Amino acid sequence: MTDASPLVPYVVRLGDDRLVLGHRLSEWCGHGPILEEDIALANIALDLIGQATALLKLGGALEGAGRSEDAFAYFRDAVDYRNALLVELPNGDFAFTIVRQFLFSQFALLQAEALTHSANETLAGIAAKAVKEYRYHVRHCAEWVVTLGDGTDESHARAQNAVDELWRYTGELFATDAVDVSAATAGAGVDPSTLEAPWRAVVMDVLGRASLSVPDTRYMQRGGRDGRHTEHLGHLLAEMQIVARSHPGATW
Amino acid sequence: MTDASPLVPYVVRLGDDRLVLGHRLSEWCGHGPILEEDIALANIALDLIGQATALLKLGGALEGAGRSEDAFAYFRDAVDYRNALLVELPNGDFAFTIVRQFLFSQFALLQAEALTHSANETLAGIAAKAVKEYRYHVRHCAEWVVTLGDGTDESHARAQNAVDELWRYTGELFATDAVDVSAATAGAGVDPSTLEAPWRAVVMDVLGRASLSVPDTRYMQRGGRDGRHTEHLGHLLAEMQIVARSHPGATW
Repeated sequence: MTDASPLVPYVVRLGDDRLVLGHRLSEWCGHGPILEEDIALANIALDLIGQATALLKLGGALEGAGRSEDAFAYFRDAVDYRNALLVELPNGDFAFTIVRQFLFSQFALLQAEALTHSANETLAGIAAKAVKEYRYHVRHCAEWVVTLGDGTDESHARAQNAVDELWRYTGELFATDAVDVSAATAGAGVDPSTLEAPWRAVVMDVLGRASLSVPDTRYMQRGGRDGRHTEHLGHLLAEMQIVARSHPGATW
Repeated sequence: MTDASPLVPYVVRLGDDRLVLGHRLSEWCGHGPILEEDIALANIALDLIGQATALLKLGGALEGAGRSEDAFAYFRDAVDYRNALLVELPNGDFAFTIVRQFLFSQFALLQAEALTHSANETLAGIAAKAVKEYRYHVRHCAEWVVTLGDGTDESHARAQNAVDELWRYTGELFATDAVDVSAATAGAGVDPSTLEAPWRAVVMDVLGRASLSVPDTRYMQRGGRDGRHTEHLGHLLAEMQIVARSHPGATW
């Protein structure tokens, strides 16, 4: 067994953000009010779960202990997940789902663009493929944000409520700790704090066009990167893991 | 308002088979025991829902009364659905889902190949796109059927049980009535009874390679094409329609 690479926790964070958000989004499949939009959200969910699969597979390879992506997904408890709190929040209404997706996708796009230069070639390759996907996600969601924010009184109120609720969960995306510094120093990762200014520029532009404003709060929720999650992640994992855990080691 | 085309009920049947099965399959998303397979099933589900959207849109256009695909999907009750009973059955275990998908996909492939020659150009175009998708679905599911049937004692038993349970729902796929005859006579549809022999040839070959046998039964369940459904469809629709019906006429 080789020693685990110090890049493992960095890659697992990337995978967990996408796995949890992909699962959340997939809950819309077959439940939306518009068939075309159901399909669009499900496609975004599939992109995210596909990326998570590739990232957690890489995490297992770097760990050197033979853990598969399925072991990461199905046999870790909430306390071992490293996703940001933003992605584990329940979907809420359609406006909440879309605003969250826009805020995350723009972050993920900037992150992936930077990671195409990663010293880890596998990670660079995953990022290059993901950049194209995120560009579509951002465009799709930004259009919806403007449509909702600049739409009826009700759609505007729902979108503004979503921004108000979600804003305090955005700070965690850009928080830097030893895991990020280690990955960035090795040339394999990107320091997330460097992404905040360009992210904010795009987000403020879109919110402005949507007649939506950012709440005047400085307090930011954190904890997910250290395994301190909301109760919502536990419920999500219980549902996601039930089949795999009911048949451990099943060979299909 | 123009008169409704006699092709409407034929096209709606095609759409309903795919909408209901696509929704069933999407229930697996995020619940399977293997990430890669979750993604594969979700992709098949998306193909089916995409086809259903195109078909029900065509149904609305042919009807001439301005019903959208969303109106067909979300504002009809079970008694107005025209899908075969096969596709509304609950997913059961993974073997049941895969065997059902194989049986349906091979039928859908033959049907779509024939419909590429439809006198209705829109329907021919939908079919041409779908043929490529069904080829992948059939290949993916046939490989799984062989893996399960020719696998462990447990996987074999589950797959055989699936064939035993599902077989009596296959007859309805090939039953012909006035709707089919009318569509076939107009050169727009295909008489499903002509598809049974080629379907059986492929199915028996794959089941043979999987060491699976077909039950010795002549009784075939029917009713879905006339709106006589199992209780399972009602539950599925209740879940699928709740959001749309809670906000009728909502403009997002």
